[in-house]
Amino acid sequence: MDQDMQQYLDKAEVLIEALTYIQRFNRKIIVVKYGGSAMLDEELQKNVIKDVTFLKLVGFKPIIVHGGGKEISKWVSKAGMEPKFIDGLRVTDAETMEIAEMVLNKVNKNLVRMVEELGVRAIGVSGKDGGLLRVDKKLSMTGQDVGFVGDIKKVNAEVLLDLLDKDFLPIVCPVGIDDDYNTYNINADDAAYSIAKAVHAEKLAFLSDIEGVYRDYEDKSSLITALTVDQANELIESGAISGGMIPKLQNCVGAIENGVSRVHILDGRIPHCLLLEIFTKKGIGTAILRNGEED
Amino acid sequence: MDQDMQQYLDKAEVLIEALTYIQRFNRKIIVVKYGGSAMLDEELQKNVIKDVTFLKLVGFKPIIVHGGGKEISKWVSKAGMEPKFIDGLRVTDAETMEIAEMVLNKVNKNLVRMVEELGVRAIGVSGKDGGLLRVDKKLSMTGQDVGFVGDIKKVNAEVLLDLLDKDFLPIVCPVGIDDDYNTYNINADDAAYSIAKAVHAEKLAFLSDIEGVYRDYEDKSSLITALTVDQANELIESGAISGGMIPKLQNCVGAIENGVSRVHILDGRIPHCLLLEIFTKKGIGTAILRNGEED
Amino acid sequence: MDQDMQQYLDKAEVLIEALTYIQRFNRKIIVVKYGGSAMLDEELQKNVIKDVTFLKLVGFKPIIVHGGGKEISKWVSKAGMEPKFIDGLRVTDAETMEIAEMVLNKVNKNLVRMVEELGVRAIGVSGKDGGLLRVDKKLSMTGQDVGFVGDIKKVNAEVLLDLLDKDFLPIVCPVGIDDDYNTYNINADDAAYSIAKAVHAEKLAFLSDIEGVYRDYEDKSSLITALTVDQANELIESGAISGGMIPKLQNCVGAIENGVSRVHILDGRIPHCLLLEIFTKKGIGTAILRNGEED
Amino acid sequence: MDQDMQQYLDKAEVLIEALTYIQRFNRKIIVVKYGGSAMLDEELQKNVIKDVTFLKLVGFKPIIVHGGGKEISKWVSKAGMEPKFIDGLRVTDAETMEIAEMVLNKVNKNLVRMVEELGVRAIGVSGKDGGLLRVDKKLSMTGQDVGFVGDIKKVNAEVLLDLLDKDFLPIVCPVGIDDDYNTYNINADDAAYSIAKAVHAEKLAFLSDIEGVYRDYEDKSSLITALTVDQANELIESGAISGGMIPKLQNCVGAIENGVSRVHILDGRIPHCLLLEIFTKKGIGTAILRNGEED
Amino acid sequence: MDQDMQQYLDKAEVLIEALTYIQRFNRKIIVVKYGGSAMLDEELQKNVIKDVTFLKLVGFKPIIVHGGGKEISKWVSKAGMEPKFIDGLRVTDAETMEIAEMVLNKVNKNLVRMVEELGVRAIGVSGKDGGLLRVDKKLSMTGQDVGFVGDIKKVNAEVLLDLLDKDFLPIVCPVGIDDDYNTYNINADDAAYSIAKAVHAEKLAFLSDIEGVYRDYEDKSSLITALTVDQANELIESGAISGGMIPKLQNCVGAIENGVSRVHILDGRIPHCLLLEIFTKKGIGTAILRNGEED
Amino acid sequence: MDQDMQQYLDKAEVLIEALTYIQRFNRKIIVVKYGGSAMLDEELQKNVIKDVTFLKLVGFKPIIVHGGGKEISKWVSKAGMEPKFIDGLRVTDAETMEIAEMVLNKVNKNLVRMVEELGVRAIGVSGKDGGLLRVDKKLSMTGQDVGFVGDIKKVNAEVLLDLLDKDFLPIVCPVGIDDDYNTYNINADDAAYSIAKAVHAEKLAFLSDIEGVYRDYEDKSSLITALTVDQANELIESGAISGGMIPKLQNCVGAIENGVSRVHILDGRIPHCLLLEIFTKKGIGTAILRNGEED
Repeated sequence: MDQDMQQYLDKAEVLIEALTYIQRFNRKIIVVKYGGSAMLDEELQKNVIKDVTFLKLVGFKPIIVHGGGKEISKWVSKAGMEPKFIDGLRVTDAETMEIAEMVLNKVNKNLVRMVEELGVRAIGVSGKDGGLLRVDKKLSMTGQDVGFVGDIKKVNAEVLLDLLDKDFLPIVCPVGIDDDYNTYNINADDAAYSIAKAVHAEKLAFLSDIEGVYRDYEDKSSLITALTVDQANELIESGAISGGMIPKLQNCVGAIENGVSRVHILDGRIPHCLLLEIFTKKGIGTAILRNGEED
Repeated sequence: MDQDMQQYLDKAEVLIEALTYIQRFNRKIIVVKYGGSAMLDEELQKNVIKDVTFLKLVGFKPIIVHGGGKEISKWVSKAGMEPKFIDGLRVTDAETMEIAEMVLNKVNKNLVRMVEELGVRAIGVSGKDGGLLRVDKKLSMTGQDVGFVGDIKKVNAEVLLDLLDKDFLPIVCPVGIDDDYNTYNINADDAAYSIAKAVHAEKLAFLSDIEGVYRDYEDKSSLITALTVDQANELIESGAISGGMIPKLQNCVGAIENGVSRVHILDGRIPHCLLLEIFTKKGIGTAILRNGEED
Repeated sequence: MDQDMQQYLDKAEVLIEALTYIQRFNRKIIVVKYGGSAMLDEELQKNVIKDVTFLKLVGFKPIIVHGGGKEISKWVSKAGMEPKFIDGLRVTDAETMEIAEMVLNKVNKNLVRMVEELGVRAIGVSGKDGGLLRVDKKLSMTGQDVGFVGDIKKVNAEVLLDLLDKDFLPIVCPVGIDDDYNTYNINADDAAYSIAKAVHAEKLAFLSDIEGVYRDYEDKSSLITALTVDQANELIESGAISGGMIPKLQNCVGAIENGVSRVHILDGRIPHCLLLEIFTKKGIGTAILRNGEED
Repeated sequence: MDQDMQQYLDKAEVLIEALTYIQRFNRKIIVVKYGGSAMLDEELQKNVIKDVTFLKLVGFKPIIVHGGGKEISKWVSKAGMEPKFIDGLRVTDAETMEIAEMVLNKVNKNLVRMVEELGVRAIGVSGKDGGLLRVDKKLSMTGQDVGFVGDIKKVNAEVLLDLLDKDFLPIVCPVGIDDDYNTYNINADDAAYSIAKAVHAEKLAFLSDIEGVYRDYEDKSSLITALTVDQANELIESGAISGGMIPKLQNCVGAIENGVSRVHILDGRIPHCLLLEIFTKKGIGTAILRNGEED
Repeated sequence: MDQDMQQYLDKAEVLIEALTYIQRFNRKIIVVKYGGSAMLDEELQKNVIKDVTFLKLVGFKPIIVHGGGKEISKWVSKAGMEPKFIDGLRVTDAETMEIAEMVLNKVNKNLVRMVEELGVRAIGVSGKDGGLLRVDKKLSMTGQDVGFVGDIKKVNAEVLLDLLDKDFLPIVCPVGIDDDYNTYNINADDAAYSIAKAVHAEKLAFLSDIEGVYRDYEDKSSLITALTVDQANELIESGAISGGMIPKLQNCVGAIENGVSRVHILDGRIPHCLLLEIFTKKGIGTAILRNGEED
Repeated sequence: MDQDMQQYLDKAEVLIEALTYIQRFNRKIIVVKYGGSAMLDEELQKNVIKDVTFLKLVGFKPIIVHGGGKEISKWVSKAGMEPKFIDGLRVTDAETMEIAEMVLNKVNKNLVRMVEELGVRAIGVSGKDGGLLRVDKKLSMTGQDVGFVGDIKKVNAEVLLDLLDKDFLPIVCPVGIDDDYNTYNINADDAAYSIAKAVHAEKLAFLSDIEGVYRDYEDKSSLITALTVDQANELIESGAISGGMIPKLQNCVGAIENGVSRVHILDGRIPHCLLLEIFTKKGIGTAILRNGEED
């Protein structure tokens, strides 16, 4: 057999290896939170979109939830305003909200365009469409009013299920409405987590700028590849992990306690991290599992 | 019978009068082009949204197509750029297009919010979603390149039909993509006209800032209430009507020749002009009819 | 704005006002018991049919249950027999039953015809069709055999649900069959009440010859506009209301206790009383509500 | 094998013999016109109902169309009026029509009752229900106005197809409405023939008081067992058959030319003539066949 | 009436008699275990197939489960091997299993052919298709390994329900697979019993070479026609019945305790024993009933 | 990036490359003829099954048609008979047919087992099931009777479409029935070709023991990678290709002329030749294309 052929056979083997994984998640919903650096680098962005499109084509039902943090800041500055944060939350007055929504929709439709370009039917929705995301005002950790920042109180899952039913790949931007139909900005991680629960997702994957969860944040070799719910709770209580990581881990634990089978914290800067995590034995980032399960 | 009761009976009579019309258009699609002043005045806007929501609830299948002209100009200026027009078309470079898309999406999601507030399920889509509006570059009348201004070559009607099937009221903003997946601005009238044809709408209604078509534009008393296709063509050929009206009338004629039963040019500044036109004997604006039909 | 226009705008406002109500009862079943004077006066009859047809067209699922009392007596006399009543129940021997059924079917098909004339698909059924109404013999209050007078023991709701599913407006005449397949006359109020329970109607409306329930029957100004279940039971126990009203009120209470949200006792002599009750703030007659609800 | 057993085996053989026929007409529509003596004799009536019910249970989709001739005359007399005929058509003034409709509905609901008693879901409809039978006024052969006697101009087949779809056995009484929604009496043979065409029936069976078609009406031994369309036309043109038979045969020919596969003229006085014709080799009455077919 | 006609009328009466039974089991699943002599005699085989086909055509949903005992032995001998049994179980090494499977599939497809010839849509499946029958290894009563003899641990009922849904008559041969996907032979009685439970059959009928259950096996006049579950258990405990009958009766009892309404042990040597049992008053063999029921 | 990671990224790239192809054939039917050496080597067999299972899981609708040539000969010899061929057709007397069918079913159920083991729902059918393959007797090229060798005259495609609809992977063995319901052996290539036409397959792939079509059979370097219908016809007429290849090529041409988009002649001895052909740019074997298309 010539070398050329051997190369092709290797390719076939890779596809065959993927079989088991394709089977396991057939027709299951996977919510992908997409944000951070992975959204800024054009090459990485293309890879993420290809990965999600692949998931769709081999039978998964992916839903993308995206943020727009840095882009929003850029446009807020452009408009001559000063981005302002209290307790890590963007202070969002009416004018800022108007810009934030415009930017988020721009990002949203751009992702739609990229998925469509790969031949898959996408639709971009915000939390306004079909009343998808209903919120209350969220105060900062120290109880301060930071404007139109929302806390999700209800996800109208049927909107997404209906769109999946019509074979769309839904792409959600984290904008919500309160009982008086005012517009609110929502943290994209929170939106992804709430949506995953509401649609009974099989998997929830966070693509972010970190490699995963570290036992000791200072020691990059202490990356944890898998963590049961109990272990995650211990880690939180132990005080070993840094502040920013705590709500993220709590969301992960909450998702699993609400029926999501597995949550992944992936390093969005690694090309095709989603495919690698799902279709190969290479564990990427940190997986949060049900108690009693092993990777 | 006391006076109070008489008043209520009058109300009942109005509802009963509406019966015939409700019946006639049951489950029929009506495309409503919504733009101009009617979009700027908050009170008028509320009325239009109420009217369309009413149509939905009594069994029609409305689709809103909206523009955003003046709002776009405002934001373009805000960004320190000069709105520029050639042959009546907005010159749309990449940066202008970026702003235009952001503004159109903002307008779009605001309309979604207003419809949702009235308890009806809305969804906002642009021509990118599901590849709804595919375009080629459009040159100005004098053959000049005006940038990302698109000419619709294909409407993927199934996107809208699937959304109607799931009981959404679709609200469309006129943004399209070309074969290389670049983003284009589209004239909202053109979008409405193309969509009405593609979804086999029963009615197409343009809500604009004019009372209708005049036999003699200078003579406001020469408003035409109804016009068959033949009469419209004659009017165009006669040179009696002004330049801006010509493409609008041609679109109307084209829509009817492609299966739309009736097109209405309504004065969006009259509150509830849609309801009045459809549910009462009061003709508002100008109706373009099939040959042989009378109002 | 000219006066003519103002008048049309007023009409539009009436339609808009109806929006909220149309929405609230969309796809809900409403059972309308139709009898008494409202059936004898041709003009009133047309109004009732228009009202019910309107309900159908704006998205309700109405079912009409009608009686035929006075008409039956007329034909019984015509046949040379003497109408006879014991304890308020018509004594119904085989010959009377034969005539009663013929008259009820005549009335039934006439209502079908009137609805069809308004362009809505109607179908007339008796309790025999699909075995809709199964009865036992009913004795009079004093325990006397009054012949073929039936007490409903089972409603085969699926017959009506299947017809609604095929978009018919079912019109039911109160004839039933016992276990030996003999034909029985049924009180139309009882039939309406049993059907409303069986099909899980949202509303049950009795159109009769009375204005509603009076606190003191002699004092026409003591009409009660709304009554919770508890208040109705109190009224019954207090002995304040007259004999004939008691079983009617008990049926109303029973309907609500079995899942119907609201029961209305309406004065069928007021034109469009149904529309007025449902689509305007004008309360007509007496509404029986769940405890804790207010009108 | 004992004699008792032999008897049972014979029974099994009969069932097995029926297999071929059951198969051939599985899910096919058969329209049964039921009238004449077979309706007056209680025993015969039970047999006919059993036969049709059997057809339903083994997979056919039967539709019964019935008349009520003698019963109508009886009640017309009872009401002190004189039945009057012109050219063989009942002169039907408004009062007669009222009685005729009442009687036909009585007969209709009685048939429903009988089918229900055998455990099959029946529904009785007239030509008013769903606008099933639309008519024009029919003049007598000599051009005289005979009142409310209708000529079918449209059958809304969907009404019957929807009822079949919901597994009802429809029983139709021949009452129709004209464009002004007046009520008309229709000849039951005409109704059966028009319905068979409209619903694309596989078979149309007339149960009447004659043995079938005779080559020579005076010679009872000249009964024709099968007749192609061509042969039937010849017979009509030859003048050999009597006047009353001509329109019947023309209807039969018309039915076959409009898609019905086979028409049977059966002697309703023979018990179970329908089952015998369909499930055994015993030909009963006269079959009208397509050209080129043999029995 | 001539004698010929009388004979036909008798036939019609038989069909009419069958009505009640056809009705009672409409759309119900009946599992027919078919084996023993009834499979060897060509005439009996035709009768059984006709009976089951008849059940299908009149609205039942039959499933055939067949064995192939004697045929397997014949082919094992033909291949020069010696059929060997331990504790009544065929010792099934890999080679024997290969032959057994081939024979069973041959028998299976032959039954398919016979049903198809009668115009009914059949499909032959083994326990491998869709993973229908999953087994563990079964040891003999005395604990010996008899090779590839399987004990059913799971029936994937959906396979059969999906085939019934597509209007196939499924014919099952008792071959199963274990967790390592080895092929196993299964006792056909066990397969029938397990399948009846899994698909919630209304009836389970064993066609075998015995007349039924005897109170005293030596006394052929002691055949029991009906037996409740309690009576069957008593009989087993009393020691009155012979060894081979015990597991069969236990299976019958188990089936009823798991939702099957009635089990029949029929003498497959009586022609049309299935039809006779189901469609006539002639009880054939032994019926096992729920407690409290009487035949 | 470490080497380990690079390796994983390469894997991800392979998956991404497959995207385009997965998309193109989504929900399309592909008929795979599987025979020859690829069926004898256990390793190759596993690979073929994995490939087809992969196709199923990523959204294709594969149908396997298999042969059993060499296995049949083995068993015929085992039974002490001499395999005999006339004009290349196996002489198939009744006894040979019996063995052939048993062997084909054995092979069939073994393939079912292998697919099931990979977690995909398979069902094995012969041409008897649902009357899938109806045949006439086929004479040899020289007009000789070779026994039960069939020529397909009708494929009941609905059987396969119904099974696909229920998400089965159908595996077909080439056994058919004639009008008298005798059993026939069918050439597997013919069966695959006829089935591909009948189900409107997108692709038809022959896995055989040859590398593909050669321009000059003696010169192994003259393998043709793609051939339009016109080129194939030319090749046949030119006499350049060997006799055995002619009917195969004619079948390929016929398939394309009947709606199949592309036919592949693949070398079944190359592992994963199906995946390589479909999911990579490596062309394997010979593709027969529509005129005007290029690979």
